[in-house]
Amino acid sequence: MSSALGRIVAAVVLTGALALPFYSFVPANAESAKAFETTSKDDVSSFYLDNGLEVVVIPDHRAPVVTHMVWYHVGSADEEPGKSGIAHFFEHLMFKATKNYPAGEFSRKVAEIGGQENAFTSYDYTAYYQQVAPSALEMVMTYEADRMENLILNEDVVKTERDVVLEERRSRTDSNPSALLAEEVNATLYQNHPYRTPVIGWLHEMQQLNLADALAFYVKYYTPNNATLVVSGDVDLATVKALAEKTYGKVPRRAEVGKRERPQEPEQNTKRTVSLADQRVSQPSFQKMWLAPSYASAKPGEAEALDLLSEILGGSNRSRIYQALVVSEGSAANAGAYYQGGSLDEGSFAVYGAPRGAGTLTEVEAGIDAQIARIIKDGVTEGELEKARNRFLKSVIFARDSQAGMARIYGSTLSTGQTIRDIQEWPDRIRKVKVQDIQDVAKRYLVDSRSVTSYLMPEDGKPDEKVRAEAPASGETQEQPETPAQGIVQ
Amino acid sequence: MSSALGRIVAAVVLTGALALPFYSFVPANAESAKAFETTSKDDVSSFYLDNGLEVVVIPDHRAPVVTHMVWYHVGSADEEPGKSGIAHFFEHLMFKATKNYPAGEFSRKVAEIGGQENAFTSYDYTAYYQQVAPSALEMVMTYEADRMENLILNEDVVKTERDVVLEERRSRTDSNPSALLAEEVNATLYQNHPYRTPVIGWLHEMQQLNLADALAFYVKYYTPNNATLVVSGDVDLATVKALAEKTYGKVPRRAEVGKRERPQEPEQNTKRTVSLADQRVSQPSFQKMWLAPSYASAKPGEAEALDLLSEILGGSNRSRIYQALVVSEGSAANAGAYYQGGSLDEGSFAVYGAPRGAGTLTEVEAGIDAQIARIIKDGVTEGELEKARNRFLKSVIFARDSQAGMARIYGSTLSTGQTIRDIQEWPDRIRKVKVQDIQDVAKRYLVDSRSVTSYLMPEDGKPDEKVRAEAPASGETQEQPETPAQGIVQ
Repeated sequence: MSSALGRIVAAVVLTGALALPFYSFVPANAESAKAFETTSKDDVSSFYLDNGLEVVVIPDHRAPVVTHMVWYHVGSADEEPGKSGIAHFFEHLMFKATKNYPAGEFSRKVAEIGGQENAFTSYDYTAYYQQVAPSALEMVMTYEADRMENLILNEDVVKTERDVVLEERRSRTDSNPSALLAEEVNATLYQNHPYRTPVIGWLHEMQQLNLADALAFYVKYYTPNNATLVVSGDVDLATVKALAEKTYGKVPRRAEVGKRERPQEPEQNTKRTVSLADQRVSQPSFQKMWLAPSYASAKPGEAEALDLLSEILGGSNRSRIYQALVVSEGSAANAGAYYQGGSLDEGSFAVYGAPRGAGTLTEVEAGIDAQIARIIKDGVTEGELEKARNRFLKSVIFARDSQAGMARIYGSTLSTGQTIRDIQEWPDRIRKVKVQDIQDVAKRYLVDSRSVTSYLMPEDGKPDEKVRAEAPASGETQEQPETPAQGIVQ
Repeated sequence: MSSALGRIVAAVVLTGALALPFYSFVPANAESAKAFETTSKDDVSSFYLDNGLEVVVIPDHRAPVVTHMVWYHVGSADEEPGKSGIAHFFEHLMFKATKNYPAGEFSRKVAEIGGQENAFTSYDYTAYYQQVAPSALEMVMTYEADRMENLILNEDVVKTERDVVLEERRSRTDSNPSALLAEEVNATLYQNHPYRTPVIGWLHEMQQLNLADALAFYVKYYTPNNATLVVSGDVDLATVKALAEKTYGKVPRRAEVGKRERPQEPEQNTKRTVSLADQRVSQPSFQKMWLAPSYASAKPGEAEALDLLSEILGGSNRSRIYQALVVSEGSAANAGAYYQGGSLDEGSFAVYGAPRGAGTLTEVEAGIDAQIARIIKDGVTEGELEKARNRFLKSVIFARDSQAGMARIYGSTLSTGQTIRDIQEWPDRIRKVKVQDIQDVAKRYLVDSRSVTSYLMPEDGKPDEKVRAEAPASGETQEQPETPAQGIVQ
């Protein structure tokens, strides 16, 4: 989004399903399907309004704050061919004037009471949120419900905001070698599914987005029966219900949204590499990815096993990859693994690493390959799985211990084909994963001949070339950039 | 197509724009935009029927034969996402019963008089043809016009013929490592354009093609205003005109077909590789491809220069690559280059090679890279260009010296956004290419950091591994398979 006042041109692309390699290694799915413990099952309620809007209420009275989020079940993977970027572009347009309120009034009201707001677009959903005092909940619901129905779209707003998203692409992608590489990795990993297309859009298609596209998108997708409202925080069910009926209840059901069926992946038979060398790159790095089922698409237990496999293989500094390459051998400045299982359609599994000192990408890659081969051959131990499981559950508890985090978990999960029950039963399913399951998914999905490896290199570099011999002057180049989750455009 | 009698399950995929690497290296565009000399400009006539059908007549009285072709301006690149294979599947359905004739009658009539018939589907067009005695022209026109309008589509024919195309995919693609590799090369080379999708379709999508898809495709695309009729051979304009009005003239214009706008490629920034190792591969080979403009999309003169560049670099055994790698060094069993400029949208340029004896793919690739680098750095000489130009023009004259070849040149060219004038002026444009133009297009398009290299290897092979030391028992493994042009499915 950009605020209507033009002060904030926020632009965090959070791609629910897909990696932005070398950019962020926070597992995106950590926010999906993983709310539990501190909020008991009975605390979460959900209901539908007559117009089809799903409402989820998650009381949390630890602080006098509410988080209000509307999740539209539409993301960039729902875009028509040739119209890439329309989902995110439309998110921007939602901050324009409506029939009832001038542009910027909503944002100004939220700011005036010290609230926070933003929006983001992913492959599978587009969400708008505000965090305010409970007394302001009706105000934000009124404005949010209003723009679900009454947005004013015309040539002027389309032209102005198109320039904003084009600038966003220029500054965040086109000027960033790792972002450019990530785009082409996705376009290579996914051969048929629209996850291959960047959330922000291809430049030449963004330039052509027009008023007709925006109007069609609004009519087709911004209907209450295609959205989930999540309210978490210092609020109760009765209050939210009354307010939701008073505000969103007035929005007519404007379209029927069919089943979300996107082109799926064919069987893959090749090993692929994608390389980018650029003078702006100081720290070479590599990433190896595979298609892997998501929580929504996997057979029972597979996604949970992939999550724990990623934890054991490279989820923390206790992991096999980190211990072997960074701690013992010292060949890598960093290295790890992650699983992205939060998407509606097929997700991915990845390992990554960057050499230290005189190491090469090829050496780091070989070291990681050896760790994968070892798990495929010998599996993992009971003790190792238990420790990893505990670390993993703890990290998720930590990640979700905020009302905004909870709202996000429920919103993203319900927007990607799963249910509240899936979220609540998730810890039990993680607890049921057995050592054999870990070995099985490693063997099934981490197949070298179907992998996509990417190399980010200094200009004219090659993966097997030594990094400049001098050690980095500071720890800076050895740290992973601390960026938020993967693949959201705010 | 498959003949309605089930005897012929022909299945030559002719992908106008794209390579089937390791499969055929005949430049597909050799049949586009290159008819000239023996038929003078005045001999070719064209006109439109009232229903919008374009008719081209190419008299050629050397033999008492006519070639009759109908070219629909629809191919696999026009398919909706998720419906891959429908264009080719539909081509099969066109051999079923119509309201006026039982299934197989058309094919039988052609066979009875010693005629030939077939059909093929490409990325950009679908064509049906018969070659018969002039006296049978009215008969084939009657049947062909009939199935443009009166095809009977029902669950039964769809189900039966779907099994046929699925079997075609199994036998031609899924059981063929080089075909599987070619599919993923295209899916990697084209990041956004539908040329990424195989003409025959992805298996899982072919399995879902249904009656509704077939009906929609027929209505939308099989309308006279979306087709070009080409009649070449022992016939004159007046006769064809009268017969066309009598037969095709009765077919109503059933749909308006808008401009053919497919999603175009974004700027590419990465170097990619695609590898497949399979025990059925005996002769390793590699291919390196780049996106390059087609005749339809290029700036004036660029496509012509790319054609001559391919000739100089690797178009024959006189070419630089062949002379260096096969003749002088002897490191390659074969090696060459080709340009595919016959597509409606962006085409491609490729070099390829296979090692001989103890050579490796990496060595052959390096040898070819050196030849490309030399042209980019030093260009070509006047004498070299002149010889290549003469060879090239001669080979094209030879290729087109048949009435079927002429019909094909006109049909494919007019189905991919070019005109009769483009065809007729093409030799002059080839003659105008200068040495600087050759160097310019090499520099502009053969950029290593935007290339896609594919490796086909014996099981567990690597590009830099030596081939088994023993020489091949026969010349067989050193020969390129002699297959027809690239990318047609008959």
